[in-house]
Amino acid sequence: MKIEILCTGDEILTGKTVNTNHSYMAQQLTDAGLQVYWATIVGDDRTSLAQAFEQAAERADAVIVNGGLGPTVDDLSQELAAKAAGVELELHEPWLEKLKAFYSSRGRVMPDNNRKQAMLPAGCEFIDNPIGTACGFAINIGNARFFFTPGVPREMRRMVTEQVIPRILKQSGMQVVTRLKRFHSFGIGESRADELLAGIEDMMPDSVKLGFQSHYPQLETKLAAVASTEAELDLALAPAEKMVRERFGNFILCEDNQTLEGMIVDHLRNNKATVATMEMASAGNICNRLVNTDQHNEVILSGIVSCSLTQLANAVTMDSEDLEFGPDTARNLASHLLQHTDADYALVTLVSQKPTDDNSRSETEIIIAIANKETTSTRQARLLGGKHWVTLGSTEMALDALRRTLLDLPIDEKTDFEQQN
Amino acid sequence: MKIEILCTGDEILTGKTVNTNHSYMAQQLTDAGLQVYWATIVGDDRTSLAQAFEQAAERADAVIVNGGLGPTVDDLSQELAAKAAGVELELHEPWLEKLKAFYSSRGRVMPDNNRKQAMLPAGCEFIDNPIGTACGFAINIGNARFFFTPGVPREMRRMVTEQVIPRILKQSGMQVVTRLKRFHSFGIGESRADELLAGIEDMMPDSVKLGFQSHYPQLETKLAAVASTEAELDLALAPAEKMVRERFGNFILCEDNQTLEGMIVDHLRNNKATVATMEMASAGNICNRLVNTDQHNEVILSGIVSCSLTQLANAVTMDSEDLEFGPDTARNLASHLLQHTDADYALVTLVSQKPTDDNSRSETEIIIAIANKETTSTRQARLLGGKHWVTLGSTEMALDALRRTLLDLPIDEKTDFEQQN
Repeated sequence: MKIEILCTGDEILTGKTVNTNHSYMAQQLTDAGLQVYWATIVGDDRTSLAQAFEQAAERADAVIVNGGLGPTVDDLSQELAAKAAGVELELHEPWLEKLKAFYSSRGRVMPDNNRKQAMLPAGCEFIDNPIGTACGFAINIGNARFFFTPGVPREMRRMVTEQVIPRILKQSGMQVVTRLKRFHSFGIGESRADELLAGIEDMMPDSVKLGFQSHYPQLETKLAAVASTEAELDLALAPAEKMVRERFGNFILCEDNQTLEGMIVDHLRNNKATVATMEMASAGNICNRLVNTDQHNEVILSGIVSCSLTQLANAVTMDSEDLEFGPDTARNLASHLLQHTDADYALVTLVSQKPTDDNSRSETEIIIAIANKETTSTRQARLLGGKHWVTLGSTEMALDALRRTLLDLPIDEKTDFEQQN
Repeated sequence: MKIEILCTGDEILTGKTVNTNHSYMAQQLTDAGLQVYWATIVGDDRTSLAQAFEQAAERADAVIVNGGLGPTVDDLSQELAAKAAGVELELHEPWLEKLKAFYSSRGRVMPDNNRKQAMLPAGCEFIDNPIGTACGFAINIGNARFFFTPGVPREMRRMVTEQVIPRILKQSGMQVVTRLKRFHSFGIGESRADELLAGIEDMMPDSVKLGFQSHYPQLETKLAAVASTEAELDLALAPAEKMVRERFGNFILCEDNQTLEGMIVDHLRNNKATVATMEMASAGNICNRLVNTDQHNEVILSGIVSCSLTQLANAVTMDSEDLEFGPDTARNLASHLLQHTDADYALVTLVSQKPTDDNSRSETEIIIAIANKETTSTRQARLLGGKHWVTLGSTEMALDALRRTLLDLPIDEKTDFEQQN
């Protein structure tokens, strides 16, 4: 089945807006076992749109058109769709009523030009938009089924996931239940992950596909499955999920929509525990990641950031004379931080960079100390690479060490990213 | 002149990689006064590539093809270009020599399959790649001039800017010197910026185009100019640049490739001065922005992040009894921070959120206090909006207040983003 994505709009064509809508749609289709084979971007221009519709109608079976459903004169999708399908535009009364209600619920009268958003090609299939004023629709043009979707990302995302992909799956004759199982790990590189999962194909039916996406420092391992029922999905995925969990072990940070920092904050909340952080040269990223979660308020007590050991010691009223970079100083800072803030956990991350022969890279020593009321543990590692790479790596390593501590897992399992000797 | 962008590669087509190469190329072309009218994405597939070349050759005058110049079997651009142009592939000796030298300078022998990168269509124009192994080339196919560029972003960027766009400008018969003057401001919304610059067109020749790009909280104001000499560019841009500087005044943060945080760090370094920061609920973004600059080491002493006034006070050994959110507490924290860290400047940002009737938005009060050895000044503002919006706004406002302090500018000029009463 040939699927084409057609993104419209001057903003996208001229590069003013990066086309994340395309990547979202393409990824969702791919994850559902469908294949995108062509994509086009044209501006808000009648001639280009007509030509793009015509070409897609010839070569594709299904086309997702994105954008051009707004109320202004440069929104041309309905008009050109009707023309290409050889039908008139008709008022879709229920949508007009919904638009009017939408405005009146906000104490406003619907502007006249929004009426345009309820004018759809005669005979099309209406597709609801529960969170916006641009409804979608589907219609046959030439050999292809065209699906029209709004340009606003969150509206498009919901419509494509909930309504367009199921219709395309049905059209393709494929089984209509899909699931994407995701594992997020830290410390295993993509090629070693591939080796670790050797033989996984033998235990999966053909309807399950394994894929990796590396977002350093994390690796995402995806199992995309298609089946006819949810129960079949469970059955098809179970052995592969089990194998990923066994082979990746403690390196799995979290699954699906969870994040590492979100997990940490949830775990602390559930145990009514708090944490304070102190970090050197990771640009405040450790604190930043934790405080950017939704529910951080009562669990992240404070974060202290400085490139200077003296300043770090001062902030927790510790003697700052003769401080040396090393595990003892890290442990000492962690226990002072614990006392000073009265937190349940203190996470200290010290970093020291030595330039190498190659100017763009440096060898970085990382010392992580985690204290709680009973004990203090440390983790040391050396990373080689540019500043940005090392900052990302040390931030992840520190947060992972905290996760491991909270879950009673060993904190010193070596990652693929650090120097091994 | 009709220009088409053709991006190739399964990674882009399937959405695994977001197509920032398209937006970069399109933006550069637009800024040079050229117009992109069509864009296509196809995978690493002979049939699709041949069809895409054929269509582009019919409808465009110039085509930039991106990707497919690598050494592996799925890199097909040279092969398909030769086929479409009706010529053979030929070895480009100088490039082969350069590839061999590239490898031997790294103590390695060139793998055999890299030889493929020196096979170019006969009669094409060679385009150098000074920073990678994939050279570019240009060739006529049908009615259009095709420019082939590497998919690696930094290699593509340099080749497109330095070599492809000048060639397209020449082909278009346009003047061949271009300049993009950029102003970064904070506090002026896009529509007011447009009003403030009313009449600017009258003082600019037609060869200068005004454009805005809003990256909240900053606004980028762009003057794109085309001329035949650098001197003409100076002349064409001078009155418009002067007008932007006059009308935007103190709201201009920096120009061209400068950043707000980079300017602050440079200014502090030049004056051998230091700063310490303390922030509440801005997720450590203020410290993060400053510490992510290149030269921060000796000027950013420390950053303290907490949602709790008590923790902030503790970190600077200030009495934490009966603290109230307000300007007095902010001033008090700033002077303690100054003493405690022995910094030349202390920047304190306190934030207090009140939910509004609409759950997704809240009204946020921001208090910024900046202390140096002589004086302490404060700035207060109220922002309305979601969490992310307010965090971005308060971070920018705090850094801008520091910039204004360093440059002896007033710190209390109201922005368009805050509540006015």
